[in-house]
Parts: sequence; C-alpha cells; structure tokens
Amino acid sequence: MPDFLAGATVLDLAQPMRRGMPQSPNHPPFRMALERRHGDLVRPDGGSAANEIVVTGGHVGTHVDALAHVSQDGVLHGGVPAASVQSHLGFTSHGIESFEVFVGRAAVLDVARVHGVPVLPAGYEITAEDLDACGVAVHPGDAVLIGTGWSRRWDEPDAFVGQRDGTPGPGVAAAAWLAARGARVVGGETIAFERIPPGRGHAVLPVHRLLLVERGVHIVETMRLHPLLDTGVTECLLVLNPLPIVGATGAPVRPLAILPAGGTA
Amino acid sequence: MPDFLAGATVLDLAQPMRRGMPQSPNHPPFRMALERRHGDLVRPDGGSAANEIVVTGGHVGTHVDALAHVSQDGVLHGGVPAASVQSHLGFTSHGIESFEVFVGRAAVLDVARVHGVPVLPAGYEITAEDLDACGVAVHPGDAVLIGTGWSRRWDEPDAFVGQRDGTPGPGVAAAAWLAARGARVVGGETIAFERIPPGRGHAVLPVHRLLLVERGVHIVETMRLHPLLDTGVTECLLVLNPLPIVGATGAPVRPLAILPAGGTA
Amino acid sequence: MPDFLAGATVLDLAQPMRRGMPQSPNHPPFRMALERRHGDLVRPDGGSAANEIVVTGGHVGTHVDALAHVSQDGVLHGGVPAASVQSHLGFTSHGIESFEVFVGRAAVLDVARVHGVPVLPAGYEITAEDLDACGVAVHPGDAVLIGTGWSRRWDEPDAFVGQRDGTPGPGVAAAAWLAARGARVVGGETIAFERIPPGRGHAVLPVHRLLLVERGVHIVETMRLHPLLDTGVTECLLVLNPLPIVGATGAPVRPLAILPAGGTA
Amino acid sequence: MPDFLAGATVLDLAQPMRRGMPQSPNHPPFRMALERRHGDLVRPDGGSAANEIVVTGGHVGTHVDALAHVSQDGVLHGGVPAASVQSHLGFTSHGIESFEVFVGRAAVLDVARVHGVPVLPAGYEITAEDLDACGVAVHPGDAVLIGTGWSRRWDEPDAFVGQRDGTPGPGVAAAAWLAARGARVVGGETIAFERIPPGRGHAVLPVHRLLLVERGVHIVETMRLHPLLDTGVTECLLVLNPLPIVGATGAPVRPLAILPAGGTA
Repeated sequence: MPDFLAGATVLDLAQPMRRGMPQSPNHPPFRMALERRHGDLVRPDGGSAANEIVVTGGHVGTHVDALAHVSQDGVLHGGVPAASVQSHLGFTSHGIESFEVFVGRAAVLDVARVHGVPVLPAGYEITAEDLDACGVAVHPGDAVLIGTGWSRRWDEPDAFVGQRDGTPGPGVAAAAWLAARGARVVGGETIAFERIPPGRGHAVLPVHRLLLVERGVHIVETMRLHPLLDTGVTECLLVLNPLPIVGATGAPVRPLAILPAGGTA
Repeated sequence: MPDFLAGATVLDLAQPMRRGMPQSPNHPPFRMALERRHGDLVRPDGGSAANEIVVTGGHVGTHVDALAHVSQDGVLHGGVPAASVQSHLGFTSHGIESFEVFVGRAAVLDVARVHGVPVLPAGYEITAEDLDACGVAVHPGDAVLIGTGWSRRWDEPDAFVGQRDGTPGPGVAAAAWLAARGARVVGGETIAFERIPPGRGHAVLPVHRLLLVERGVHIVETMRLHPLLDTGVTECLLVLNPLPIVGATGAPVRPLAILPAGGTA
Repeated sequence: MPDFLAGATVLDLAQPMRRGMPQSPNHPPFRMALERRHGDLVRPDGGSAANEIVVTGGHVGTHVDALAHVSQDGVLHGGVPAASVQSHLGFTSHGIESFEVFVGRAAVLDVARVHGVPVLPAGYEITAEDLDACGVAVHPGDAVLIGTGWSRRWDEPDAFVGQRDGTPGPGVAAAAWLAARGARVVGGETIAFERIPPGRGHAVLPVHRLLLVERGVHIVETMRLHPLLDTGVTECLLVLNPLPIVGATGAPVRPLAILPAGGTA
Repeated sequence: MPDFLAGATVLDLAQPMRRGMPQSPNHPPFRMALERRHGDLVRPDGGSAANEIVVTGGHVGTHVDALAHVSQDGVLHGGVPAASVQSHLGFTSHGIESFEVFVGRAAVLDVARVHGVPVLPAGYEITAEDLDACGVAVHPGDAVLIGTGWSRRWDEPDAFVGQRDGTPGPGVAAAAWLAARGARVVGGETIAFERIPPGRGHAVLPVHRLLLVERGVHIVETMRLHPLLDTGVTECLLVLNPLPIVGATGAPVRPLAILPAGGTA
C-alpha cells in the first residue's frame, strides 16, 4: 500500500444523519425507523436480523448538488432546457450520477480563522478579499472548502438552519473568485452555500446560479468541516463520492479528508 | 498532493440506484421521485430549483452491514443483548455509525478467475480451497473483496436476486478462512454475502452469523466489482464510507477502489 | 336516529392494507413500519405510545381515481391542459379533493352471477350486453358497482395483479353504457377498471380515457365487493369518502355499503 | 333509497391533507409528491397518467387512534402485554383494523357554544360540568363529538399544534364522564384529545390512558368539526371508516356527518 497512508489521518466531514437534524424546510424531512427488530422473526437456528426504512431527500444532511438542481430562465448548465430532461425518471442529464467521483486536492480556506473567530456571524457575507486573505493557492480542478465554523453550531437546529438570523456564506464576488480559479467543486458548512441575510430564508440563491448554472461548479453543503479547520491545514486529499441516485438533483455523501502523517497533503 | 495519486485510476464499486433495481424483498423498495421540477416555482429573477424525495432502506443498493444487523439467540457481537440497544432511535450501539470509515488495503480474491469463468454459477459455494487458490495474502485489518462476477448480471433483476436459482457465495468454511486472517471487512457482489441455494431464498444466513455476530467482521454487499476484477489486480486501496445514519443496521455506500499508475497498489 | 339504520348491515368494501398486498407495479409499494413501540419511551407515570410510518401511493389498495389521473393528448376532463395545473403542489384542479364525497345509491351489477360463476375468467371483457343482462336500473348520479368476483382472489397476489394472465373488466362498450346512464362513479374489484388481456400488463387504458377524460366519471378500484355480491342485492347505500389529499391523482378509501334490514336499500 | 337521505346534508369532518399542515412533531411529516406527471410517459394513443407517492403516519391529519396506540405499565386494553403483540407486522391485536367501522349516532357537545365563544382558549380544560351544561344525551354505543372550535384555527399551524400555548381539551373528569355513559368513540378538533397546558407539549396523556387503555374507547383527532358546530345540531349520523392499515396504531379517516333534511338526525 502507498507509504502515503502510513500514519495518515482520515477525517469524517459528514454530519450524522438522524431524525430532527437541521435541514432545509424545502426538502423531505429525514426519517429512519427500524422496520424489523431482533426477535420479531427468529429462524429455527436462533438467528434474527433487523432492518430499517429511510425517507430522505437529495439535499438532506451532507450532500452534493448536481447541476440539475438549479436552472435559470428554464435552462440548465450548458444551455440545456430543463423541461427537456426532467421526468418521472428524474433527470436524464445533469443528474448527480454525472458528477465524476472526486479524489484529489482540496484547498482549505478558513475564513473564520482569518477573522480570528471560531464561527463567522450569522448573515456574514464572505468576500473575495476574505478568500485572498486566506493565502491558499487554488488550482484548476481543485476542490475548495470554505471554513465558516458554522458546523460547530450543528447542535442548535434553529440557529443552524438560520430562518430567523441567517447564515454566513459567500457572496457573488467570492463565488466568482472560486470559479475564476477553476475549482471543480466547492464546499461549505451551511445548508445552502450562500450568504443568507437575517429574516430572508432561502429566497434568492445567486451563488447557486453562478456556480451550478453558469460555471458548472458543483457544491457540497452541510459539511462538518470543523475538525479539519481545527488542524490548521491549508490543503488535504478529499474523497467525494455521493450516492449514485440516477437522475437525482443531489445526493448524500460522506466526504473524507485524508491528511498525511507529515502534515499538509 | 501525494505522488501516489498521479495517474491513479479510481474505480466506482457501487451499483447505480434507481427504481426497479435488484434488491432483497425483505427491505423497503427503493423509490426516488422528483418533488419540485424546474418551472414549478420560479423566483422573480428567473431562477428555479428542483429536488426529490427518496425512500430506501439500509440494505438497498451497495451497502455496508452494521454489526447491529444480525443477532444470534438474542445477542449481538460482543455479547450485547439486542433488546437492550434497539428502540425508536435505532440502535444505541453496533449501529452503522460505529463502523470506522475504512481507507486502506483491500485484497482482491477473484474466485471466478480461478475457475476460468466470468461469472460463477448460481448456487455455487465458495470454499476455503477456492480462497487459497487465489494466492493473495490477507493481512489483519485488510478488506477482502471476493470476486464472483455476479455484478455482471445486474441488468437481469430476477436472476440477480436469485429467488429461484440462488446466488454464488462463500460457505461457512470460506467465511472462517476470512475471519481467521483478521479481515476487518469483506465484500461481495451479491445481495447477501452468502451462498444461496436454488429455491431457498434468504432463509438461512450462516456466514452473516459467523462474521457479524461471532467475529465482528463487517460485510459489504451488492458491490459492482466487475470493473475491478477486469483489471486483474490482487490488491487496491479501498475507500468505504457508508452514510452515517445513526442507529441504522446498515447504510448505502459508494465504495471506491484506487489503483496507482504503476499497477498494484 | 333514522329508523332506516335499525338492523341495517354495514359491509366493508375495502381490502386490508399490508406490506406485500397486490398492487400495480407502477405505484409506490405500500410499506408500514412501527416507528415507536411500547417500551421505547416510557413516561414517568408508566404510559407509553406506539406509532408508525406509512409509505404508499394514491392508487394503492382500494382507492378512487381523481379526474387528474389521466389525460388525453395533454388535456384533462373539460379541456384543461394538464401542464397548466400540475406542479410540486400536485394538481390545482381535478385533484381527488374535488371529488364530492358520495353518499347515495349504488346499483350493483354482478356480471359473474349472470354468467353463473363466482369469478369471471382472467382477461374476460365485460360487454354492454352483460350489463343489460344484469337487469338493474342505473339512474343519473348513481354509483355503479360491477361484480367480477375478482376480489375473491386477493390472496393470490400474482394472479390478482394479472401481469401474466390478465384480469376481467369492462370493455369500451360497457364503459360507454355506464356513462350513457349518467353514473357519477363506477367501481370494480381489479386494480385497473379495465379488461387486461393476458400478457399485456396495463399498456392501454381505454376505459379510463372514456370515463375520466371524456365523461368525467370517477373510478373506484381494488374494491372488496365479494361480501356484497354474496348478498345478492342489486342496490345499496354507498359511502365513498377518499382521503382528502390535496392535489393528488387518487386516494385510498374505505367504501361502505349499507343494507337496510328489510333487504334492498 | 332511504327517504332519510332525501335532502340530507353531508358534512366533511376531515381536514385537508397537504405538506406543511399542522401535525404532531412525534409523527412522520406528511409529504405528497407527484411521481409521474402528464407528458412523462405518453402512450402511442396519446394517453398519459399521473400518480404520486405519499409518506405519512397513522396519526397524521384527521385520524382514529387504535387501542394499540397507548399502553400503561406495558399493558394494552384488556390486559394484553404490549410486547406480546407488537412486531415488524405491526400489532397482531388492537390494531386499527380491529376498530369496527362506525355508522351510527353521534352526540354533539359544543362546549365552545356553552361558553359563548367560537373557540375555547388555548390550555382550557373541559370539565364534566361543561359536558353536563351541553344538555345532550349520550347513549351507550354512541360517538361523542366535543366542540372546542379549535378546527377554526387550522390555518395557523404553530398555534394549532400548540407547542407554546397549549390546546383546549378534556380533563380526566370529562373523559370519565364520557366513558361512564358508554361512548364507543369520542372525537375532537385538536391533534391530541387532551388538554395541553401552555409550554408542556404532549408530555402526559391522561385522557388517552383512561379512554384507550382502561375503558377501550376509541379517539378521533384533528377533526374539522366547525361546519358541524355551526349548524347547531346536537346529534347526527356519523360515518367513521379509517383506512384498514393492518396492525397500525391509528389510521387516517375522512369522517362524515349526515344531517337529515328536517334538522336533527
């Protein structure tokens, strides 16, 4: 096996999925129930098996947005009319299965650290200057993870969702900064990779428009980045393999950051 | 980034998830439906977003079995009474979130290749001798992937499930062989990592008992191994990161095999 | 209370809903699982409550088809373009909530009895002559229940669905006969109120077109009519109150037939 | 048909079911999504069919509580140990299918009217004296509908659920009053047929215990009674036919009140 892995640290960047976890009210509430429990059905040899039923959505928990998720004036990325590819089968193009699994470099831009705070304030707009101030190179094809520290607030569901007070996130200028450097995928800790102002909810999504529709850049949301931010690394090996739900506009993922023994990847 | 990745090949070992795909009749049928489509709700700026609802189970599609999945005489691995840890919250121990994400060496034992066939016959029992004949070392803590070629039959749903004709899989002796070598997790292409004889369905699961209950070895099922088997490698770097559904007896996963440029990992 | 009810018999015309019951493969499979069981959560006073999660469809089990269910050349009953009323909210017109609850006379036309058999053969087409031969008057605004005896086969799921051998049901001429007499709603025992020929599945639905699109006549399917047929009555008081799922193309219902003490209603 | 129905009025006592409607946070959130829309799949003859997927619970929307719903010290009504009858199949006794469909007299006790208000205050406890003051006879086997006017607040979801301010409902003495008169089933407008004090949520359910466990009296909740209360009738013919979900602890229902032309039933 690669020496690279000797002593490497693997960080789990997914939030745990359970009933009542913070999620957008626009998507089906996560629900898991045991269907069969041990003892319900016991085989002659004394064995028994338990299982569950799960109801969820493609944008529930830590997840990747497919390019099919957002359209502008009826058109998806690349000029494809949305109406021509959506049906009872989901999307016949731009679905999450068309996202090529990512295994590669992630640049880690910890904006909260730049500001000297563990968590950026609700409603804070990340600027292009903030990204510059991180001092981390972004190369074409990279993933870019933007630290706000917001994943530290996971256990405060109402605040996390931010319906009242908003959430921190990139403004359009910051999104343009990311796209201009050729990022293939960008990720953040909030439910929407946007700056949500107080009292507005998810009314407008200009960053989604720019990234998903105009530039074809995928988005990862609701990431649990704080353990990665705590290490202080500015890059890592990232694994992004969303469930291959054919035709879906997004899918849950359990992203992993791999840090070599020596420090930066 | 690690030189190791330069020119590496990443293979997707998950079957695509869609309505009607082969799955066990014991688990909730997979269902995905678009909830909102583009045009349903258009914001003043011309933007629109689509999303979906997903119904599934923890053992649907490519997935990892948690130790909570199977009990023997009312007891889970390690002597924990199943009744003491199962509730409306799922399992408070042995749930899939207790499976430590796996990033490490997988030994690839292609039994179909040993027999000189692309796919082992339905109902074939893999023996310890078959595993010996593969000539691949298994080290403590490894993952072991057993090739039967069965994933080549994914597009024949009835045959794949094997209710009538059965499926190939390891017998108890082969499972004991795997456990004796210290495998941490084992994976196969069939819905159940068992030899299912013709006409029997999933009536008895002796390999699950041995691995999950007695030895604490996790199982990955319904893997799409054939692209990996086609390379002829005998080891690879495997990433196994099932969705962290707290308290579940299993969870979907999109396993990745990473093959370095030079050949074997 | 009305004397009418003194000694009246109430017959339940719904099939029981449980996992694995016969249903169309085109609709979400019925699934019910207990979520909380007694003992999972016990209040200080020793009380405990159990509940469940249910996944189903609008055309699963005994149900009423809304006029929104079928379109012809893109148009619903009354010339409404389907595309103009369907969205993430369901249907803004022609949904099942627009079916006025039915409490009134049902004419019972037992075609199986006319043929002297308990169950009509699979694939049998009910003709206008069959309906004439029943000798039962149908008045404008009536419900009409057509007996085929098929509900006696409920416990044979494969045969009941009829994917291989088909099911008995009205042909277009019989449907026209029903519409011509002003029936407001018609009901039958099969999953689709159609004659399904052997080996064809639900490929074409000419009776749905005639009734739902052209004539605005609602359809009840998968009714458990055999207890009613066994009484030999030719009319009864029928209660049809499908769940008011706003915007749905159909909804489950538990129809009741009420027979006065003296015999016919 | 019975003269009784000539000119009769049929009132729909169910709340409409749609996403976001008020419901208990303890139960699966209602969700309906169109799966296939018109145009997704068009047959050669120009026909198309739409359908939906529904996720719900047995205690969502207007519904009947089965005796399986609540236990006391591990025991259901009649001394049946809950653990002995609950499994992956639901309940093998006391499930909602064991509720005999009700078609009979309902006594209407409008407590809000007694107090001269359209809606009783949140947190108000209905007393035995309140029920006496209604001056309506209750006979053994009757249904009893208790008017609070709460169904008028359906369009205020937060207030309706009452997590903060509570809801009006019967106290234990009122429940004992109902049971003592032999009511077979009782119904109300709130989500729980209980007085919920402000700030308490559904922490304790003494009326459920008395009615469901001790006395075997069924409960209907979330009824839309206000159109019935507005008529001023003190009795009616009530039809209560919950979906026959085998083994469930409750099921949705669309109750109907039938008022003869002359006035009281």
